[in-house]
Amino acid sequence: MNTIAKRKDVAKLAGVSEATVSRVFNNVPPLREETKQKVMQAAKQLNYHPNAIAQSFAKGKSQNIGVIVPYLPKVHLLSTSYFSEILSGIGVKLGEMDYGLLLLFQSSTEPKDYVQLFHTQKVDGCIILGSQDSIEERAALNQLQELALPYCLVNQTFEGTSFHSIDAMHYEGSSQAVSILLEKGYKRIAFLNGPKSYSNSLERLSGYESALQEKGIELNDDWIFQGNYSRKSGFQAAADIGPLIPHLDAIFASNDRMAIGLMQGLSEQGFQAGRDYALIGYDDSDICSMISPKLSSVNVPLFEMGQIAAETVLTMVERGVTEQIQVRLPVTVIERASI
Amino acid sequence: MNTIAKRKDVAKLAGVSEATVSRVFNNVPPLREETKQKVMQAAKQLNYHPNAIAQSFAKGKSQNIGVIVPYLPKVHLLSTSYFSEILSGIGVKLGEMDYGLLLLFQSSTEPKDYVQLFHTQKVDGCIILGSQDSIEERAALNQLQELALPYCLVNQTFEGTSFHSIDAMHYEGSSQAVSILLEKGYKRIAFLNGPKSYSNSLERLSGYESALQEKGIELNDDWIFQGNYSRKSGFQAAADIGPLIPHLDAIFASNDRMAIGLMQGLSEQGFQAGRDYALIGYDDSDICSMISPKLSSVNVPLFEMGQIAAETVLTMVERGVTEQIQVRLPVTVIERASI
Repeated sequence: MNTIAKRKDVAKLAGVSEATVSRVFNNVPPLREETKQKVMQAAKQLNYHPNAIAQSFAKGKSQNIGVIVPYLPKVHLLSTSYFSEILSGIGVKLGEMDYGLLLLFQSSTEPKDYVQLFHTQKVDGCIILGSQDSIEERAALNQLQELALPYCLVNQTFEGTSFHSIDAMHYEGSSQAVSILLEKGYKRIAFLNGPKSYSNSLERLSGYESALQEKGIELNDDWIFQGNYSRKSGFQAAADIGPLIPHLDAIFASNDRMAIGLMQGLSEQGFQAGRDYALIGYDDSDICSMISPKLSSVNVPLFEMGQIAAETVLTMVERGVTEQIQVRLPVTVIERASI
Repeated sequence: MNTIAKRKDVAKLAGVSEATVSRVFNNVPPLREETKQKVMQAAKQLNYHPNAIAQSFAKGKSQNIGVIVPYLPKVHLLSTSYFSEILSGIGVKLGEMDYGLLLLFQSSTEPKDYVQLFHTQKVDGCIILGSQDSIEERAALNQLQELALPYCLVNQTFEGTSFHSIDAMHYEGSSQAVSILLEKGYKRIAFLNGPKSYSNSLERLSGYESALQEKGIELNDDWIFQGNYSRKSGFQAAADIGPLIPHLDAIFASNDRMAIGLMQGLSEQGFQAGRDYALIGYDDSDICSMISPKLSSVNVPLFEMGQIAAETVLTMVERGVTEQIQVRLPVTVIERASI
């Protein structure tokens, strides 16, 4: 066995033309039952599989869903719980539905062109992760929207647009986290946020502000810090935040990675979470319950968001894009020893 | 803009036949320069992209590499550092080379048939992760091997075969880890291994045994435990291992997840790593330096293994499979507070 059987091999063995083989596999009349049997028999004998690409071409379908992720080689992106959880959810659902998951990295150099993926029929639909607000991103999404192509954003909502998205209730989650700190008696609560190009950063900021305002606490810009969602940026923020402890008595961080970096940085200054200051992270990744003290966090159903995004796009692929999809899943604050 | 431009639209605008449009895009003579210009101009105006699937069909290439992973929906597989690091390495390399990464989940119900992926031209090559020794797996790999198809295993070697694989020096890593424990004065060292269907479990066992034997220490089967590489299985092993402390003074675990589960389980019994017993894990995942005490571990270059696997398969795709590839990368023991 040294070659893959081709249509012509089947035709030869069955004693029919190549066109007849194609007609049999695509079930195109006229077809005599006897011919069909001969072809199927020959195909079986040669272990012949009709060419998937050719079949896809005929159907105009690739049977793949593209998942677009940022291209950040140094970050080992897929190793962050945030991306891997969403991706697991997408993968499980696509696996169930017999679709392939085509992982596509954003190019840092080429212009964004999501429609191109459809033009070239690489994918039947796409899911966009890690999207940030920019003129270029809006333009690329607008194109998808105008052409009514099957796509979906995860965890990003663009104000003033009707882009399809599966998101979570970050305003509420953030406001609840800060309210819990207030209820526990903490009054001077700092906020370590991520970049404002992510809608969920802005939503968390609003949640933080509204929880404080509700209790009549004045907002203090000096207590708002910004990292880039990496552990390193949390570690670096410790240099600015440390000197404010114990005047600051609690910190709310926009993701767990920054919270953990911050904990490590503050620990080097002799401050321990849960003893010298309270700390709440965000995402509720696995690691929260592995570290000491265990990190309180806002649980975001990332796996489920991935599953729903996949379902949404598959429905669009199979039934067409008929309505605007904007879903927001609830989040929950998980209290642990760090507060 | 409401439809995607097709070949016939370009033909119409350029005033040529559809066949001519195809000839231009596939650069098939005879072609007059003037005709070519007209077609290219029309294509540009209509934002027409020649169909990638059709082009792939002509070339017999999908420009995708399949990455086959076990299908374990409950495990959130991609969220384990082990898989996500390998996958990141593969993804970065394929991204650079302009190949798509088609993530394919093993079916638990359908028989293994890797060749099928090539028959159906879904992929030009494939990389197999999480492979385990079984008759079925060997048969499926044998088929790939006999057909000289481009594929590669990662972190699994089948004794007595010449399957292509990118692996790490687990025998050496394991033996070094145990030797370090011995040098530090620990003498009664337990071993928490993973399932023996993974070659790297067997290699770690050999490394453990040889390090002890080298020091004239008798092997004790009662000190060898088995989990399934999950954190839960490490936690469960604590029930058996706890009662043996302090008679047992050190434990070597075959991956970090089991080591961390074990740490948690033993901590509930009042035993602390680095104080009541020494502990070394394996893989050196991010989390080792986030927990307390920091976990000593054997660093495996999983990201690099993924990169090399991708490079290997791409070379096979582009130049044909001409030689047997069996690579072993070195590993390093990283000492931290847990020993």
